[in-house]
Amino acid sequence: MKPRDSIKVAVIGASGYSGEELVRLLVSHPNAELAAITSRQYAGQTLAQVFPRFAHHPRAKELRFSEPNVEVLAKQAQVVFLALPHGVATEYAVPLLQHGALVIDLSADFRLKSAEIYKEFYAHDHPAPELLAKAVYGLPELHRSEIRGASLIASPGCYPTSILVPAIPLIRDGLVKPESLIANSLSGVSGAGRKLEQDYLFVECNESVRPYSIPKHRHLSEIEQELSAAAGKTLHIQFSPHLIPVNRGIVSTLYLAPQKHFSTAAEMADLNERIVACYRKAYGNEPFVRVLEGKALPDTKNVNSTNVVEIAWRLDGRTGRLIVMSALDNLVKGASGQAIQSMNVLCGFPETAGLI
Amino acid sequence: MKPRDSIKVAVIGASGYSGEELVRLLVSHPNAELAAITSRQYAGQTLAQVFPRFAHHPRAKELRFSEPNVEVLAKQAQVVFLALPHGVATEYAVPLLQHGALVIDLSADFRLKSAEIYKEFYAHDHPAPELLAKAVYGLPELHRSEIRGASLIASPGCYPTSILVPAIPLIRDGLVKPESLIANSLSGVSGAGRKLEQDYLFVECNESVRPYSIPKHRHLSEIEQELSAAAGKTLHIQFSPHLIPVNRGIVSTLYLAPQKHFSTAAEMADLNERIVACYRKAYGNEPFVRVLEGKALPDTKNVNSTNVVEIAWRLDGRTGRLIVMSALDNLVKGASGQAIQSMNVLCGFPETAGLI
Amino acid sequence: MKPRDSIKVAVIGASGYSGEELVRLLVSHPNAELAAITSRQYAGQTLAQVFPRFAHHPRAKELRFSEPNVEVLAKQAQVVFLALPHGVATEYAVPLLQHGALVIDLSADFRLKSAEIYKEFYAHDHPAPELLAKAVYGLPELHRSEIRGASLIASPGCYPTSILVPAIPLIRDGLVKPESLIANSLSGVSGAGRKLEQDYLFVECNESVRPYSIPKHRHLSEIEQELSAAAGKTLHIQFSPHLIPVNRGIVSTLYLAPQKHFSTAAEMADLNERIVACYRKAYGNEPFVRVLEGKALPDTKNVNSTNVVEIAWRLDGRTGRLIVMSALDNLVKGASGQAIQSMNVLCGFPETAGLI
Amino acid sequence: MKPRDSIKVAVIGASGYSGEELVRLLVSHPNAELAAITSRQYAGQTLAQVFPRFAHHPRAKELRFSEPNVEVLAKQAQVVFLALPHGVATEYAVPLLQHGALVIDLSADFRLKSAEIYKEFYAHDHPAPELLAKAVYGLPELHRSEIRGASLIASPGCYPTSILVPAIPLIRDGLVKPESLIANSLSGVSGAGRKLEQDYLFVECNESVRPYSIPKHRHLSEIEQELSAAAGKTLHIQFSPHLIPVNRGIVSTLYLAPQKHFSTAAEMADLNERIVACYRKAYGNEPFVRVLEGKALPDTKNVNSTNVVEIAWRLDGRTGRLIVMSALDNLVKGASGQAIQSMNVLCGFPETAGLI
Repeated sequence: MKPRDSIKVAVIGASGYSGEELVRLLVSHPNAELAAITSRQYAGQTLAQVFPRFAHHPRAKELRFSEPNVEVLAKQAQVVFLALPHGVATEYAVPLLQHGALVIDLSADFRLKSAEIYKEFYAHDHPAPELLAKAVYGLPELHRSEIRGASLIASPGCYPTSILVPAIPLIRDGLVKPESLIANSLSGVSGAGRKLEQDYLFVECNESVRPYSIPKHRHLSEIEQELSAAAGKTLHIQFSPHLIPVNRGIVSTLYLAPQKHFSTAAEMADLNERIVACYRKAYGNEPFVRVLEGKALPDTKNVNSTNVVEIAWRLDGRTGRLIVMSALDNLVKGASGQAIQSMNVLCGFPETAGLI
Repeated sequence: MKPRDSIKVAVIGASGYSGEELVRLLVSHPNAELAAITSRQYAGQTLAQVFPRFAHHPRAKELRFSEPNVEVLAKQAQVVFLALPHGVATEYAVPLLQHGALVIDLSADFRLKSAEIYKEFYAHDHPAPELLAKAVYGLPELHRSEIRGASLIASPGCYPTSILVPAIPLIRDGLVKPESLIANSLSGVSGAGRKLEQDYLFVECNESVRPYSIPKHRHLSEIEQELSAAAGKTLHIQFSPHLIPVNRGIVSTLYLAPQKHFSTAAEMADLNERIVACYRKAYGNEPFVRVLEGKALPDTKNVNSTNVVEIAWRLDGRTGRLIVMSALDNLVKGASGQAIQSMNVLCGFPETAGLI
Repeated sequence: MKPRDSIKVAVIGASGYSGEELVRLLVSHPNAELAAITSRQYAGQTLAQVFPRFAHHPRAKELRFSEPNVEVLAKQAQVVFLALPHGVATEYAVPLLQHGALVIDLSADFRLKSAEIYKEFYAHDHPAPELLAKAVYGLPELHRSEIRGASLIASPGCYPTSILVPAIPLIRDGLVKPESLIANSLSGVSGAGRKLEQDYLFVECNESVRPYSIPKHRHLSEIEQELSAAAGKTLHIQFSPHLIPVNRGIVSTLYLAPQKHFSTAAEMADLNERIVACYRKAYGNEPFVRVLEGKALPDTKNVNSTNVVEIAWRLDGRTGRLIVMSALDNLVKGASGQAIQSMNVLCGFPETAGLI
Repeated sequence: MKPRDSIKVAVIGASGYSGEELVRLLVSHPNAELAAITSRQYAGQTLAQVFPRFAHHPRAKELRFSEPNVEVLAKQAQVVFLALPHGVATEYAVPLLQHGALVIDLSADFRLKSAEIYKEFYAHDHPAPELLAKAVYGLPELHRSEIRGASLIASPGCYPTSILVPAIPLIRDGLVKPESLIANSLSGVSGAGRKLEQDYLFVECNESVRPYSIPKHRHLSEIEQELSAAAGKTLHIQFSPHLIPVNRGIVSTLYLAPQKHFSTAAEMADLNERIVACYRKAYGNEPFVRVLEGKALPDTKNVNSTNVVEIAWRLDGRTGRLIVMSALDNLVKGASGQAIQSMNVLCGFPETAGLI
């Protein structure tokens, strides 16, 4: 789109956790005016009524949830965020695009390039396969230039972001064997959405830690797609999610075989230097990637409510492996913050606008 | 020792989390009489005063913490549990053994067979290397017969138990390549002990998830020792601990390469059958190992306050890997419950006495 | 009932939190054999399948959930526990009593003596008002002798127990003005039951503290009934519940005006002595009431998973008030443990059987 | 001070929880430039090193902790915040004022007007009693005009703020009997500061709820001072703090006797209208006080990380009492946010600058 100082935006499905976080960030964004928020459940109520935590914001009593009417929304906003369950998002994306809106979808609907893989992982035919080629995978650190010209942005999943950001530079630079990747991930409960299922009741989660969806969680499909693109070959990797009792936060621990075996201390130091250089090249100027080069390791409490991914790594001279760890806030860099970062790129705003 | 109905026991260092859990279990044990509990900090106070949670127990007002006097203790008890920091345990173990007591040590002091490896991991010379050969690694599922005749039992660490129990049968039966093992572990905060460090304050742990001590946590030494023994060769494996905000519980997720590559559905089904058979053979009669053969996955809330290890596994046809998951309570099967299980074996009591 | 060594018991509605806790305690009770557990949702499944945390118990694979059939249950068990939503409990209690079973109901259905007050607080007519006179309020510390001959026991609510146990002796002995009572209570989330409501999702409860149902929570009716009986006059008191992010535990803080004003240090010391004496008389021999006479204050972590109520008090010389604090586990002394304590009384078993 | 667009500020003691929160807010304040942060422990390190959570902020690598040197600080900043333990704050306040700095103290050192009461509650003589008359109690909603001309602002405690904001208007308007006030308060663990005491370890707080410091917590002194001023007479009131397992947040529940007894529905409605009017008059234009007039009740999760106090009330027709509930974030409106709000008032900035 043409550069401008400010745009109008709308959020469809603003009552889930991602939608709420979009509202939190957009309502104070210096270049965006939140023109509409929709929710079937809360239509007619003000932001202040539905989310008391925002009630002291100047706009909280004036901003009112509406029914999601595509024609109206396309007139109210240039950019429309979809914070809807997968499958439902397409129903809005298609007509919104037809009406000329720019769409940033936080669901999984447009993240995959292949309708076959979509069907394999989501167990039904893709409802609008013709849009898959058009959509851009909205990870600015990897696809910034494509985002600039996009009309449909598929904002990445929370787990994929926590894995792709640390892994892709190493793969692109040929430092690791991409097929060796094992990603062990831990997520807070908001990652499950505001879903009424027994598994997510307080008493069932508190004092509980558990793996789930092993070995084929849906997010694996987009992780493999992006890793394969970076590797230049089709990859199948390991991804194991676990649920832990925090509201927000993902930690991913990646296990990788270096491309070049190291055995002496000198070889290890050399490889380490190459990793330092690789990450500096990739992320030295990225405002939202924090590579920890000292003794510190990632911790979700250092990234919560921010759009930052923390990354650290260790080489293990005994096993010859590289361990890379990342932490991010699943609702910010893993969802809403990243979607706004994409909007900033798309609209020519400063990339950190509204996010620091 | 000779079979008998009941013995007298003592706990040295009964005021830490493991010591407290030993007291909880021993005070109601049908075959053991808790004759003495020691704590420098609380000497002179009753159990009821120091741990109000036990105050309704009939013995809580009569049982009194004492200074740890080895001569006295060796007369009061046939079996003495040491719940002390590593290094300190040896100071008590040596004279206790000389006085004829049977010692069950929950510290790391006697877990390693090699004084060199001890020094490598604990950064100082072992204070009583002559005892290392004498000590038995107190994991009853693996070393039951040796425990029967032992006078010094080194009770395993919490992380090692969560990794060895699921991994050893697969290695013994040659189903997996042992050097491929990657163990990603998550632990509750009681694993750090009742330590006054900023890292373990409520506010620093709540809403925080973080890796630590990667790649060479001290527990790695005993994990590798036992795996190497099972494999018949020296192994270096990967072990990555993480701290998560629960009081109790460990989940370990193990990644393994099967010994025999599988690619067809039939090969995968065949391997799966062999794993079923392997675990049934190893643990079919074990009272404290629960192998989940259906859809369920381990969850710390299903093992907390019990002496049970839950195990489940998944084969991944896409990557060719075997993923094995376990859950246990770090203070029970990972520490005090296991030590009592060893005592039961040692003394000829029913192995589940005081533990179900 | 006639004294005997052992009885058969059944639990109807064994899949909620109270039902689960009943099962946990009854399955190991020395004088009770758990003959039947029912659940519409889980009929046909074993205890091990539904509650993996009990799976290592010897009976877990044999004990199977059934449909709740009153005729069958009345033959299987002499004592039947009802762990059902209020209103539903009556549907089972009426025919069970007709079939000669002894009924211990954990719902609110039979706690009130007055059908009018029931209607005022529960918003519908009582379905079996003729049983209200017959039911005994199952708080053994207050109604032990009536429990002995009862056929229908209405086990108290969790909040009421936390308030009545500390308040009643003071009122009975005329030490406080009963109408001055203000009870400020805090409860863990299991108090809400295993209910699928947004308010009880992990993310909505974690890092949240909130009052609710102020000023007329349903439990107020039974609190006032019992306090009024102790005071010998009709009372209206203040009760304010709050939800806090723990699984288990209630703390109640009571504010009371002493009957006799105190102003000097001597008067205060005198009143304090009378309170000491009052509680010693009331609870000196009670196995489940722990009156803290020293510096310690109640803490839920000291009573969780036990059947104990902790009580402490402070006189405030500046305001002239008495503050009494209590802590208990809402699922044990506040529900299932107390119901079993009543069973022990009813059946002539040692009152602590299965509870210590 | 003279109106200006921007000032330079410093934070002494920036490594505790309040200090950290001051830094979080000041580093992005539109009218304040954070010129210096001090910490003995971390002197020489950058903000990014000490608090990785701020590391993505543009100033995080440049802003460096220094030793607290009063002369230097008085040159670097016009306004100096003291986030120090009580007692220590005075040591800095005295020379800073002599050097002409404006001081906003978050400790308890200057909150009391009376050196006698200070000694009664803090157990030692006040180190600078001559400053007590000069200091202004920094609760802008109550003392805005005095704050404007102050050179020493004593920022209120967290508990006092949660009690005074809801109680003062009712007392000023004569709607309640001030001596009837009972305040039952619940606080998250950050209220204890970053203190290495066993009571605040994760395992000791998680799954624990407990009263403490009853009946004479130190904060009672400032609560009574301000209430007495509003009432026009010396008051002693009841205040009972409790510790609950959340990082942030205070809920206070106040019990009050209305000045005028109500018994009919009409009288109750009338009193309710007067309370509505009272709060609207007091807080209708206050940006940080949210009076809930509908069905909603305060919840810490609606105020956390904001400078807002939520207030709601209920009249109880059965007991004749008024119950008022409040929620705030103890680190923001209860500490650092409020101190910045005072700075905004003092400096003539928009009162919400840097706080919304």
